[in-house]
Amino acid sequence: MIRMGVIGYGYWGPGIVRNFQSVNDCQVTVVCDTNLEALQRAKRAYPAIEVTTDPCAVVASPNVDAVAVITPVWTHYELAKAALEHGKHVFVEKPFTSTAAQAEELIELAERKNLQIMVDHTFLFTGAVRKIREVVDQGMLGKLYYYDSTRVNLGLFQHDVNVIWDLAPHDLSIVDHITTEKPEVVIATGQSHLNGLADLAFVTVYFTGKMIAHINVNWLSPVKVRMTLLGGEKKMLVWNDVAVDEKIKIYDKGVDVTSGNGIYDLLVSYRSGDMLAPRIDQTEALAAEARYFVECLSTGQRPFNDGHAGLRVVRILEAADQSLKQGGRPVTL
Amino acid sequence: MIRMGVIGYGYWGPGIVRNFQSVNDCQVTVVCDTNLEALQRAKRAYPAIEVTTDPCAVVASPNVDAVAVITPVWTHYELAKAALEHGKHVFVEKPFTSTAAQAEELIELAERKNLQIMVDHTFLFTGAVRKIREVVDQGMLGKLYYYDSTRVNLGLFQHDVNVIWDLAPHDLSIVDHITTEKPEVVIATGQSHLNGLADLAFVTVYFTGKMIAHINVNWLSPVKVRMTLLGGEKKMLVWNDVAVDEKIKIYDKGVDVTSGNGIYDLLVSYRSGDMLAPRIDQTEALAAEARYFVECLSTGQRPFNDGHAGLRVVRILEAADQSLKQGGRPVTL
Amino acid sequence: MIRMGVIGYGYWGPGIVRNFQSVNDCQVTVVCDTNLEALQRAKRAYPAIEVTTDPCAVVASPNVDAVAVITPVWTHYELAKAALEHGKHVFVEKPFTSTAAQAEELIELAERKNLQIMVDHTFLFTGAVRKIREVVDQGMLGKLYYYDSTRVNLGLFQHDVNVIWDLAPHDLSIVDHITTEKPEVVIATGQSHLNGLADLAFVTVYFTGKMIAHINVNWLSPVKVRMTLLGGEKKMLVWNDVAVDEKIKIYDKGVDVTSGNGIYDLLVSYRSGDMLAPRIDQTEALAAEARYFVECLSTGQRPFNDGHAGLRVVRILEAADQSLKQGGRPVTL
Amino acid sequence: MIRMGVIGYGYWGPGIVRNFQSVNDCQVTVVCDTNLEALQRAKRAYPAIEVTTDPCAVVASPNVDAVAVITPVWTHYELAKAALEHGKHVFVEKPFTSTAAQAEELIELAERKNLQIMVDHTFLFTGAVRKIREVVDQGMLGKLYYYDSTRVNLGLFQHDVNVIWDLAPHDLSIVDHITTEKPEVVIATGQSHLNGLADLAFVTVYFTGKMIAHINVNWLSPVKVRMTLLGGEKKMLVWNDVAVDEKIKIYDKGVDVTSGNGIYDLLVSYRSGDMLAPRIDQTEALAAEARYFVECLSTGQRPFNDGHAGLRVVRILEAADQSLKQGGRPVTL
Repeated sequence: MIRMGVIGYGYWGPGIVRNFQSVNDCQVTVVCDTNLEALQRAKRAYPAIEVTTDPCAVVASPNVDAVAVITPVWTHYELAKAALEHGKHVFVEKPFTSTAAQAEELIELAERKNLQIMVDHTFLFTGAVRKIREVVDQGMLGKLYYYDSTRVNLGLFQHDVNVIWDLAPHDLSIVDHITTEKPEVVIATGQSHLNGLADLAFVTVYFTGKMIAHINVNWLSPVKVRMTLLGGEKKMLVWNDVAVDEKIKIYDKGVDVTSGNGIYDLLVSYRSGDMLAPRIDQTEALAAEARYFVECLSTGQRPFNDGHAGLRVVRILEAADQSLKQGGRPVTL
Repeated sequence: MIRMGVIGYGYWGPGIVRNFQSVNDCQVTVVCDTNLEALQRAKRAYPAIEVTTDPCAVVASPNVDAVAVITPVWTHYELAKAALEHGKHVFVEKPFTSTAAQAEELIELAERKNLQIMVDHTFLFTGAVRKIREVVDQGMLGKLYYYDSTRVNLGLFQHDVNVIWDLAPHDLSIVDHITTEKPEVVIATGQSHLNGLADLAFVTVYFTGKMIAHINVNWLSPVKVRMTLLGGEKKMLVWNDVAVDEKIKIYDKGVDVTSGNGIYDLLVSYRSGDMLAPRIDQTEALAAEARYFVECLSTGQRPFNDGHAGLRVVRILEAADQSLKQGGRPVTL
Repeated sequence: MIRMGVIGYGYWGPGIVRNFQSVNDCQVTVVCDTNLEALQRAKRAYPAIEVTTDPCAVVASPNVDAVAVITPVWTHYELAKAALEHGKHVFVEKPFTSTAAQAEELIELAERKNLQIMVDHTFLFTGAVRKIREVVDQGMLGKLYYYDSTRVNLGLFQHDVNVIWDLAPHDLSIVDHITTEKPEVVIATGQSHLNGLADLAFVTVYFTGKMIAHINVNWLSPVKVRMTLLGGEKKMLVWNDVAVDEKIKIYDKGVDVTSGNGIYDLLVSYRSGDMLAPRIDQTEALAAEARYFVECLSTGQRPFNDGHAGLRVVRILEAADQSLKQGGRPVTL
Repeated sequence: MIRMGVIGYGYWGPGIVRNFQSVNDCQVTVVCDTNLEALQRAKRAYPAIEVTTDPCAVVASPNVDAVAVITPVWTHYELAKAALEHGKHVFVEKPFTSTAAQAEELIELAERKNLQIMVDHTFLFTGAVRKIREVVDQGMLGKLYYYDSTRVNLGLFQHDVNVIWDLAPHDLSIVDHITTEKPEVVIATGQSHLNGLADLAFVTVYFTGKMIAHINVNWLSPVKVRMTLLGGEKKMLVWNDVAVDEKIKIYDKGVDVTSGNGIYDLLVSYRSGDMLAPRIDQTEALAAEARYFVECLSTGQRPFNDGHAGLRVVRILEAADQSLKQGGRPVTL
């Protein structure tokens, strides 16, 4: 039985508690929030769970094996560190930490104490991303050319992070998950119109092997778009996450280039065949992730979304911020 | 009566001839192409029009008042220059020239000889862009925050220019047309997978007044997307050019930021009202543009899509190429 | 304070309880179901509510002012009658009853005992239908020509009623709500492929004033379609209920017919203007309906979705069944 | 070499001439129209073709082997009869004739004189319908349950036929083409709001084998819809003809019914798998049809869209008209 303490019961916390509660061999024993109303809601929903406003009580509790840190990103490092120091495994909301240095320190601490870190890259557990990973792993797309994502909508403005830290971690964790190419250079452009934080931004990441990722994030779009194009040598994939059905479409389309007679004489030909929209598993992502966390703790297996995965995302976010501040200057990782 | 000579009867040329032919007070007198089959097609369609393989015969012809240069971009400068030197007005396919220096020289030459230059920024004559311009001019959107365009599809690979020079001039000419803000810095990223020319690219242009433009162009997309988001202080607009109906949607949506009590205490509120899809005029863009060219020649009125407009677009293209070659380094205009 | 007893805690019942619970001046005091598991779920969710397997205990309870009958349609008459006879107001799931005769008897009984009947025509309380009613009432569409609805999806097969009784009541209650024209003749065609009950059907209702309604219902469609066309003399409306946004679009389109010179010489001209997608109120329909029920009970106001409204729908359903059984023969109301 | 005479050069005639002209071993020798402007247009486009206002000159011409009758439906019988009597094969615009009796007489005449009749059911030659036929023939859908088509838009009002005769022949010819089940009963409802002819109508056709077809046609719809659902025992197909891509989607979805313990205890289960959008051939339908006509004349092969196919469609149209006039009464074929 894994006993969880959950710190943070705001927007995302209730989903975390509900999902961990429903995993076999797991129970949430304590919930912490500085907001008393949030605690009352937690108490009403789960009368048996202890509540507290003091995070120290959670990390130090003898009734807690693992701590879920579901708080603003600038608090992650300190809370996770305290938990690890008290010998607790940690499950940390994305993005992992505010800086790569913090992430490295937490990873080192966890390894020293033989504890697990899981970063809540929830999207990796959706049916859509699992299908994309499967399709890529099977080689159906061939060598990947690009990952191009548009993730825009109206709001929700954050007060502590810009739109890149808010929305880009989704795509960065997905790209990290589906390719073995390494990110090399980051370029971020964008603008801040309202509260001093960038409210729209465009991030390019150059990878090894000529792969390129581009992420368009925007809090000021009148329409909600969640569309990712994934181009490969053999086939191409479109993931439209706001579609009710057929979220993923795999196109038997592509371009073949062959040499003609002369040196400049490349013959380009286009292929266009059927389109397949595979059935997507509908299981709630967070439910699958919670089960996976408990399973990793039980078996000692290292999760794929561990601290290192979290660190790789934070490194790109840090570089993006640096590039953005310098007007789009390329930042080498 | 304006007598036109048309150089280039490949992909775009037949549309040019057909449209200029149908303008009152205008007739195409000679068509030139180095491809004999193209000339045969022209002759079959218009038995009365003279055909030639020699562009010099066109620019020097006493039966020609204006020359349309509908050839690959690297030939524009020389052909337009010859036409101007022979006292002919010119209508030049976009992009205007290969370099800003060439464009400047042509402008100077035309002004010296009191001749007109029109650059074929066809999109400015579509019902959609005319409606966007009208909406912006009426102040319906308020101060513009951003222009974000996605212009992707499979092919058509060009052999002489990369995807930026092929597809971005559309958006650059539109942004130039609808705002008075000035472009200041260009950042372009992208990748070349097949024939050595960038086949997908992401261009950011920083403008004065915190306006920002972003253009996503891609020859390797399995789906055709032509979607532009235009965000303003008051309202927001979506232009979906592949939609059969309702190409333009104007959203009464936005974000208001007011100061709260403390310095960090900005209150963000969202507005969400009706959506209006205005009726779009269906006139063929090129027909309107041809009429406008003939009208400008007749009245001496300077067209808004003159050499200077063409130059402004070429300057950004040049900067984009430079930035792309330097791995995304910001290039100041 | 209105005290509600709810009979039936299956698919729809929990929503009923939740919504009535959250109305001011209303509380659910007892929940009844023959399924013990359902009662356990109710008890867990609402520890303070009494549960019972005996509907008689509900209708006879001194702690109940009104009874919600959320059970299969063939049980409505008996349960509602018992409730009315015990002096309780009733809220009855749609369709109201299995026969028009039953509905008439209940109406008569309620009037004699000065009690209220509300039939749960939930769709009338959605933002979309309220907007349609508003648009029609304002005369924006002009005289109504037709109401044409497609309401198809895969499943959910019912065991006691065919697809007409399952899905058509929505549209029939909406048409009844937005027009004052009277239904005159019903024609229903359809087919039964699986369990002996019609699984797809097409219902036409001729109204006075040349208005016509058509309803296409289907349990065997691979895609979910919820689209209604509403044509009027002046404008036309499309209601797409599966759209995430812009569920209602009002088209400034129409046809004008004027007499030409000869008797057969009608000149038809088409109008095509802007399209407006009005903002739709997002309030949960059932919440609004529950509030309205409590308000009607408090003020004595007769609800628009009263027994008579329920009866009008049942009459058309009965006629549709009769027509269907007779191979599509027209049935006069 | 097949020499064609074309009677009727209005809306559809130019496409007919252009396509027959481009078939090898075929040439259009004469075009007839009572409208002189139409003839001038024909002459300009095809200087070598003879033009005439006299249809007799076409049917009697020694330079004509086959006559295409591209005129209003009420003239088909007389023109086709005259052509056949003069020993010419005929290609007749759909619908074949105004009455089944006329169609039978033409078929008898053609057979007696050993001449061919082809009815222009153009849709059968589209890539989409050919793919549907292929999918059905391969048994991919299993036994067909239903064909449900919505074919609505604003206009184009006809002056001589109602909306059923204008739009339903497309679907009726397609259903006839893809199933061997026989139509048995027709029910048509509808209404006329403007010029005395039904402007919207709903046609149900009961077939043998529990197959049912439903066709929704409407000249008064603000939006253009061309959507057909085709439900089968094994899979289901959606044909959206206004979609730019992916016009046909094949869903691995369905319902299985198995007997449970009791007599009323049918267990319904739903299957939901992948969706496939097969590549659709883009060849112009009329080009393929023209080639097929010439091929049938050359080889003596009887076309599948022969007079009998035309007759089968006309019989249903006649029955639909009869049903419509009688307020929806079922008409047995």
